[in-house]
Amino acid sequence: MRATILYPNQDVRIENVPDATIRQPTDAVIRVTRACICGSDLWPYNGGPNDGRQPMGHEAIGIVEAIGSEVRTVKPGQLVVMPFAWSDGSCLFCEEGLQTACVHGGFFGQSDDPGGAQAEALRIPQADGTLYPLPVGEDDALMASLLSLSDVMGTGHHAAVAARVRRGGSVAVVGDGAVGLCGVIAAKRLGAEQIIIMGRHPARIDLARHFGATDVVSERGEEAIERVRELTQGLGVQSVLECVGTGQSAETSMGIVRKGGAVGRVGVPHYEVISGAQPMFYGNVTVAGGPAPVRAYIDELLPDVMEGRIQPGLVFDRTVDLDVVRHGYRAMNDREALKVMIRP
Amino acid sequence: MRATILYPNQDVRIENVPDATIRQPTDAVIRVTRACICGSDLWPYNGGPNDGRQPMGHEAIGIVEAIGSEVRTVKPGQLVVMPFAWSDGSCLFCEEGLQTACVHGGFFGQSDDPGGAQAEALRIPQADGTLYPLPVGEDDALMASLLSLSDVMGTGHHAAVAARVRRGGSVAVVGDGAVGLCGVIAAKRLGAEQIIIMGRHPARIDLARHFGATDVVSERGEEAIERVRELTQGLGVQSVLECVGTGQSAETSMGIVRKGGAVGRVGVPHYEVISGAQPMFYGNVTVAGGPAPVRAYIDELLPDVMEGRIQPGLVFDRTVDLDVVRHGYRAMNDREALKVMIRP
Repeated sequence: MRATILYPNQDVRIENVPDATIRQPTDAVIRVTRACICGSDLWPYNGGPNDGRQPMGHEAIGIVEAIGSEVRTVKPGQLVVMPFAWSDGSCLFCEEGLQTACVHGGFFGQSDDPGGAQAEALRIPQADGTLYPLPVGEDDALMASLLSLSDVMGTGHHAAVAARVRRGGSVAVVGDGAVGLCGVIAAKRLGAEQIIIMGRHPARIDLARHFGATDVVSERGEEAIERVRELTQGLGVQSVLECVGTGQSAETSMGIVRKGGAVGRVGVPHYEVISGAQPMFYGNVTVAGGPAPVRAYIDELLPDVMEGRIQPGLVFDRTVDLDVVRHGYRAMNDREALKVMIRP
Repeated sequence: MRATILYPNQDVRIENVPDATIRQPTDAVIRVTRACICGSDLWPYNGGPNDGRQPMGHEAIGIVEAIGSEVRTVKPGQLVVMPFAWSDGSCLFCEEGLQTACVHGGFFGQSDDPGGAQAEALRIPQADGTLYPLPVGEDDALMASLLSLSDVMGTGHHAAVAARVRRGGSVAVVGDGAVGLCGVIAAKRLGAEQIIIMGRHPARIDLARHFGATDVVSERGEEAIERVRELTQGLGVQSVLECVGTGQSAETSMGIVRKGGAVGRVGVPHYEVISGAQPMFYGNVTVAGGPAPVRAYIDELLPDVMEGRIQPGLVFDRTVDLDVVRHGYRAMNDREALKVMIRP
């Protein structure tokens, strides 16, 4: 079968790899009907640590083709969302709703087994705990929004939950990528009154406004911090959704959060320490977040997608065939495309 | 009047200073009936940054002697608890219950005006928002526990709240000082099932057990981390109450917190950065806390004190007269005394 493999120097290849098969009795195999490229895929694309050969992709919708002997709830033929992490659905972390800490869990798209989702098919460990059956067919008009439940919408929601977004509250979203825009949706959905999007890309800002952003801050660094303070009577915001992961975005987040407020981090951090341990303390600022338990959030978010109350699928602005997935990487890396869907 | 003034090199003096007087219409003046020495007073005692002359003390119970023309609820003759920070009781932070961020607030014992509580009397800014009238007389048998509501009990409770202590949960308390011991009380009160006290002072450990600690870890550093993991099936605890404030205690806290857990910091941090930003992220660990809004917590804690369900006053194991407060500092610094009460 064909699968996307990343090599150093932005070398994205489609290779023939061994077919996905059942290896454990708790496995399923899905035929991928939609996958996509994540902002986090651009880190290894641009030379992050990898061993020179990385199977790519951790977001997908697919059809269940085969199941292992111990799979009980997932059935062949079902259309399912695949969250970016697998999880058994029964350990103490899964029961708490933190599937990304599952004791039998792991992350797709990090090694040859189980491989990545930018492929024709994929082995799914812990199928019962991982896969979420959908009540629609594979060409449903809502497919883009449903696909976002595998990562970006759940991740934006996690940022909002970690940042304790409250009804009537003030929010800043750091980053105008797909996750940041889903963070705007999540903040609006949770009742925030003021939602400041921090970014400068015109089309993304327009989409952020469509999703509910009330203010735009295009400045960076100290100027951005001052601008947010101007917009909040000098106080900063109650909730910061940190959707980038750089040292600068982390510092900006700490600079714009109100005393007693919270920073919800979902941008994979490319920094080693959280600076400002003392002002954070004196301001009673909370820092929370991490890999989103998107599997837990589907229950809550799916009805809003199905009934059209939220439209996270609008973050997809380009579709490519699997064979030319490299074009999708280039377009996202050049910020020509916001988020690229893949048709295997 | 007499007041405690700290000079460099552990030089604690009782000096005659100008009498406390009403300066603002929202002020009160209290005659201090009980004060005490805080673990945080030992930082400047041991050479922290100060300008060479610091009035000391931020915890007191006293009798209201005078009020300004705009004071509405506090009355002369009332016995009151003085939280370690003053607050107007009406700003947006006070309304949220974060009085330590009050826009008209500040901290006692940091400058000559309003001075410190280890004194015969003290000017109280924002008297209506700050002072909490007590339903007892000045020599009530519960005085020690009531005095703890001005700081240590409320601070231990804040650590537990920030660390999201839950019914049936697992907790580790880093530090066996008075705040840590009050953290044990708070964790027990909030229903924690496992409470690990981390410390090595026999009398304090005994008191921690009396307050509800279920396990003791006397090791330090990596060994302490391993020991806590042994006690928690390798997982770490859901809630860490960081009641020390050193770089080592912060690192230990991050090493023993479970994925999805929280560290509640109330030890004034003597470190600049929070290390381990990446493992904290991958573990979805929350870091929260800061100066406790003890004023907000008195409503909740006072009934438990009055009805004997909690006895935080047991942390006081020595009483000194104001004239020899220097003996109290030395005893606490040598860890001969856990917490020293002062009779002005």
